[in-house]
Amino acid sequence: MQARVYVTLKPGVLDPQGNAVRGSLEALGFSKVQDVRLGKYLEIELAETDPMAARASVEEMCRRLLVNPVVESFRVDVPGTP
Amino acid sequence: MQARVYVTLKPGVLDPQGNAVRGSLEALGFSKVQDVRLGKYLEIELAETDPMAARASVEEMCRRLLVNPVVESFRVDVPGTP
Repeated sequence: MQARVYVTLKPGVLDPQGNAVRGSLEALGFSKVQDVRLGKYLEIELAETDPMAARASVEEMCRRLLVNPVVESFRVDVPGTP
Repeated sequence: MQARVYVTLKPGVLDPQGNAVRGSLEALGFSKVQDVRLGKYLEIELAETDPMAARASVEEMCRRLLVNPVVESFRVDVPGTP
């Protein structure tokens, strides 16, 4: 079973990488770009058949390793769970 | 209008970062993790009201700057487009 995790910077946290991308896009002529925020995307393959158990496990991974709760928030997407 | 871009390594491309995350998760006791692939996630805010035009623009951004087509593939998600 595959879980997908989206890690984003919280609103208000400076995103120098995103700003650099925005600057580069503007330099390339993409004048309609107003803001770019850069985050992480993880695909985690689990030996788990219960979607709810998979989701709980992945959420714990986020809290313990993948996400810095001071500046980042996360969203977990597991097929078959709300 | 906000577009979301998911950039992933193509299948078969080595992912040392993902492997490092997998190793760390195993060390923390998450024994059911089989594979971890790490990608990028971008939120792009556009001054554009036409969803199809926004999608076309973001896909061009991917081809010209955001994605290395040799080793990466991408998916664009714009509300109101297929």
